[in-house]
Amino acid sequence: MVAMNPLRLKTDDDFMRRALDLAAQGRGAVEPNPMVGCVLVRDGNIIGEGYHQRFGGPHAEVNALRCCDNARGATAYVTLEPCCHHGKTPPCSDALIQAGVGRVVVAMADPFEKVDGGGLTQLRRAGIETELGVMQEEACELNAAYLTRIRTGRPFTIAKWAMTVDGRIATHTGQSQWITNEASRADVHQLRGRVDAIVVGMGTVTADDPMLTARPPGVRTATRVVFCAHRVPNVQSRLLQSARDVPVLLVVASEIEQAAVAAAEKRGARIYRCASSDPVAMIHEALDHLGSLEMTNIMIEGGGELMASFLNAGAIDQYELYVGAKVFGGRDALGPVAGEGFAQVAEAAALRLVGLQRLGENDVKLVYRGGLKN
Amino acid sequence: MVAMNPLRLKTDDDFMRRALDLAAQGRGAVEPNPMVGCVLVRDGNIIGEGYHQRFGGPHAEVNALRCCDNARGATAYVTLEPCCHHGKTPPCSDALIQAGVGRVVVAMADPFEKVDGGGLTQLRRAGIETELGVMQEEACELNAAYLTRIRTGRPFTIAKWAMTVDGRIATHTGQSQWITNEASRADVHQLRGRVDAIVVGMGTVTADDPMLTARPPGVRTATRVVFCAHRVPNVQSRLLQSARDVPVLLVVASEIEQAAVAAAEKRGARIYRCASSDPVAMIHEALDHLGSLEMTNIMIEGGGELMASFLNAGAIDQYELYVGAKVFGGRDALGPVAGEGFAQVAEAAALRLVGLQRLGENDVKLVYRGGLKN
Repeated sequence: MVAMNPLRLKTDDDFMRRALDLAAQGRGAVEPNPMVGCVLVRDGNIIGEGYHQRFGGPHAEVNALRCCDNARGATAYVTLEPCCHHGKTPPCSDALIQAGVGRVVVAMADPFEKVDGGGLTQLRRAGIETELGVMQEEACELNAAYLTRIRTGRPFTIAKWAMTVDGRIATHTGQSQWITNEASRADVHQLRGRVDAIVVGMGTVTADDPMLTARPPGVRTATRVVFCAHRVPNVQSRLLQSARDVPVLLVVASEIEQAAVAAAEKRGARIYRCASSDPVAMIHEALDHLGSLEMTNIMIEGGGELMASFLNAGAIDQYELYVGAKVFGGRDALGPVAGEGFAQVAEAAALRLVGLQRLGENDVKLVYRGGLKN
Repeated sequence: MVAMNPLRLKTDDDFMRRALDLAAQGRGAVEPNPMVGCVLVRDGNIIGEGYHQRFGGPHAEVNALRCCDNARGATAYVTLEPCCHHGKTPPCSDALIQAGVGRVVVAMADPFEKVDGGGLTQLRRAGIETELGVMQEEACELNAAYLTRIRTGRPFTIAKWAMTVDGRIATHTGQSQWITNEASRADVHQLRGRVDAIVVGMGTVTADDPMLTARPPGVRTATRVVFCAHRVPNVQSRLLQSARDVPVLLVVASEIEQAAVAAAEKRGARIYRCASSDPVAMIHEALDHLGSLEMTNIMIEGGGELMASFLNAGAIDQYELYVGAKVFGGRDALGPVAGEGFAQVAEAAALRLVGLQRLGENDVKLVYRGGLKN
């Protein structure tokens, strides 16, 4: 790579921002690994850059080193602490040491138990100057899902719904096609194409008989997960009809009889049988199970009762909401979150707005992080 | 005024944009007049500018001419066709002619019956070059409320509500304080301080006993209008207790008995008795009445049943919606628009998004124009 700096980057923050932008390009393709970017700088010029492009492929540091002839004495900006263990690829700390870089700037430490400070220690022992914490907040934000899984063993959960400006997900007769415009629907399909699971309740399966696939397909094929509190999907449902092509996982309440489950299993569905039949307890069991399958991001698409159970379980990490430019009205038209609901305003979790975007001519996308209760 | 052009304006559009920005400063103070701005330009420099600052005061052209020594040969950019009739002030067309301006560029014609092309005709007859239609769309947008009143005889109606991200205006127990943050609530009070009326239904009066005043007061004091379909507010209500200080107007269904109305009237409320008791018919009657009072902007604050009646009457021109960063949930928690609602998606009006704004840390304001039905 020819030394260059067309964006006139100057500070540690500038170069780390570039590394974060590179890292984000791996979204959807690298999980359960974290997204990582790396920029190599000498004399204020970028002499190499790279990112972790797909799970199983080379890490960001190796990709950056590969595209530069000589990194001796350079500064490496890495968005996550370099790994120091032999995984699917050799340790990145070794690669940086062998390349002879003079300084390594890291945005955040990697809490993964096989790294957890070890990468930085190794670099320092080799006499390399290290710095930790540059653009740390942004780096944590980028890998929020990875951090959630490493720290809790559970996937990061995204609640998604589309609603009218008066907060309805269907007319009072149940019609919902379409509340949002094409740009919003395309955005939803992109989201579906990068998550590990798309989760719905049985009410949605019965009402809509949905496919829950990404169209066009994304970098990753989500498992379609159905919470079955009282019954399982009909074998004629589109989900079970396609279960041999696109994975289906039924999260089944303890009270459901084995005969019904066996029929679904015969169609190719995988089964996770809970010890409980309580909706909130089932969610906790299922999240542990999905985490054990190394799922990083899961998306909950409804309906309102399942959404309310996730809310009651304190298990919604992010909201991705699409507001279509229509008014349905109707005291009996469905809202996105049902259940009993909170009685007091003070019980409601305070969310954090992290995204606000116009989609197409008249739709709006709102993104929130699920907050702690007041 | 010293000739100047610090913003380096160049084109007709540039100068008209400046005139529109000036015009907008009259919002809330000039109604039932339109907002108008005027910029005088010679040799590419601004030699005078002004806007209509308050109802009864001088018009934009006069204010602009007053602040420049000599406008001979200058170009006047005016956001609305100059008036040619003696109203509260002498005709602006005369003032421009007497000042000797060489060219008048106008954004839009004034459909007001006493002008309606007459101002432009008078200028042309005096040998002044005129141009019509520069930034016309923006000018119509700015004076949408004025145009609505001139064309229909009715005020421009703004539906306002605050809701959670899941579209609830209260918890299932009726709590709603507070859904939104301080910045949103301050924004609502600014809106209250510039409209001619704040409209609610009896459900809201009974449930909240609201004052419906702007705090702090704005440039204009809104009449508090209550739609009384079955009953009138209690004489002990805060509205009626304060009716001698801040106007209260009760829009009363034909079926309501005179005794109840008389008690409210005795407290200082004005009464508009409808010929009908049907909610939609009452809205049409009331809008005609409020228009005859020269009201330009009215704001509907709820509740959900009144909002649904306005929707059914096709009588919502604009939506100003505040989304607080909370989730209430609850299948029985109230939404902002009740009534029966539309059965088919295709029945719902398609709105036009005209505003999208973050308020404070986590709130969002959405502004839509009410569209035609699909």
